[in-house]
Amino acid sequence: MRRIMLVVAYDGTNYCGWQLQPNGRTIEEVLNCELSRILKEDIRVIGASRTDAGVHALGNVAVFDTSARIPGEKVAYALNQSLPEDIRVQCSGDVPIAFHPRRCHTKKTYEYTIYNHKFENPIGRQYAYFFHHPLHVKRMQEAADYLVGTHDFKSFCNIHTQVEDTVRTIYRCEVKKDGSLIKIQIEGNGFLYNMVRIIAGTLIDAGTGVLAPADMLTILAKKNRDAAGRTAPARGLKLVKIAFDRVDVCL
Amino acid sequence: MRRIMLVVAYDGTNYCGWQLQPNGRTIEEVLNCELSRILKEDIRVIGASRTDAGVHALGNVAVFDTSARIPGEKVAYALNQSLPEDIRVQCSGDVPIAFHPRRCHTKKTYEYTIYNHKFENPIGRQYAYFFHHPLHVKRMQEAADYLVGTHDFKSFCNIHTQVEDTVRTIYRCEVKKDGSLIKIQIEGNGFLYNMVRIIAGTLIDAGTGVLAPADMLTILAKKNRDAAGRTAPARGLKLVKIAFDRVDVCL
Repeated sequence: MRRIMLVVAYDGTNYCGWQLQPNGRTIEEVLNCELSRILKEDIRVIGASRTDAGVHALGNVAVFDTSARIPGEKVAYALNQSLPEDIRVQCSGDVPIAFHPRRCHTKKTYEYTIYNHKFENPIGRQYAYFFHHPLHVKRMQEAADYLVGTHDFKSFCNIHTQVEDTVRTIYRCEVKKDGSLIKIQIEGNGFLYNMVRIIAGTLIDAGTGVLAPADMLTILAKKNRDAAGRTAPARGLKLVKIAFDRVDVCL
Repeated sequence: MRRIMLVVAYDGTNYCGWQLQPNGRTIEEVLNCELSRILKEDIRVIGASRTDAGVHALGNVAVFDTSARIPGEKVAYALNQSLPEDIRVQCSGDVPIAFHPRRCHTKKTYEYTIYNHKFENPIGRQYAYFFHHPLHVKRMQEAADYLVGTHDFKSFCNIHTQVEDTVRTIYRCEVKKDGSLIKIQIEGNGFLYNMVRIIAGTLIDAGTGVLAPADMLTILAKKNRDAAGRTAPARGLKLVKIAFDRVDVCL
């Protein structure tokens, strides 16, 4: 038995997220199905990040076990032949059998994209949240700065979470303007359920002036979901990268 | 009677192009239908550029005549309420009744996008042509330079055209690299049927080394479609902007 790792990019628009669902097509289901067909075994992938319905990824990570003899790096080529065009494996390779993508230290990078313009842009609408009220990027960055560091992010977590420890470390949170696009890049050691989307919704409130940047301190201190802004829509969110601190599993 | 001008953005993926077709949904048809419904008149738009099936636009231009009293600039708002999400009017306003968007001097800007990477990227795949063989951008630019100026572009025109005069002027043709994206920006006083897509296909041949940059001279001189490269796919093409030389019709 060997363990193979995949770096997977997908357009989440037409999926009910990563994780297997009784009703609705998911990324995990498509990967299991295509890998089982190609390798003629019952394959079950384990994903590093179980992204929500409609969320995109450039580099989600999954592993699976197989006794097949295919060279690890060839799995990407074989899989891409038969995957639907909204899922593409970016690379593949062998990893130690003990490696579990959710049980090791990682640094995850997400990007939330806002299209801030008077009218919607149909081109790329699947990958950005359209928000027509002008946003003040500098104020958004000032608010974002309060999130960097180790904090209890309970206020930025969907109340339906089962997680008990809501302390996370944010290494970087940058708000960048590129024409009418505003991109929130956020890097951390882990993210709670809906955390990036609630942060995006709250930074938008800072950008419109509904919140002052320093209000982020109060919001964090309250440890109450109601204190933060709304959950920004899934379509603007993209899992960019997952970095593992073990060099031997970096492809 | 008055004439109103629209600047229209669309994702062409799910349309059979701009122009009315007996079979298949087109941008023109959707605009006629929604405008007629809103203004309670039989409205027929005239488009500046009749883009092909699958081609996108950030700023195509259309005019229509109406006796309705709606303020010109409000048409965009009214229309965007009911248009499908892959079409959005960017602005609207009154223009002189004699203004015809295909019968005046214009400068059109197109952009052709290539995603040049080992594996496809599902995110944004609708707006880029995936080409995995590495492309030499500097050679593409050298080839592109030969196209700037006034030339007979017969070699870069689909043979099914009805146009007799195939001389056009290209003001600018730039090949830019942005990560794995290669963007060909081209500005001219007019473009023949499939011209930008054939130019893109030919510049790709220069980028792989199939053609030498100076071969562009021979291709132009031959005035024969077979001399140029293949027609690059529609999905990579975007009509960026149409500028009219009459100031009174600029919105």
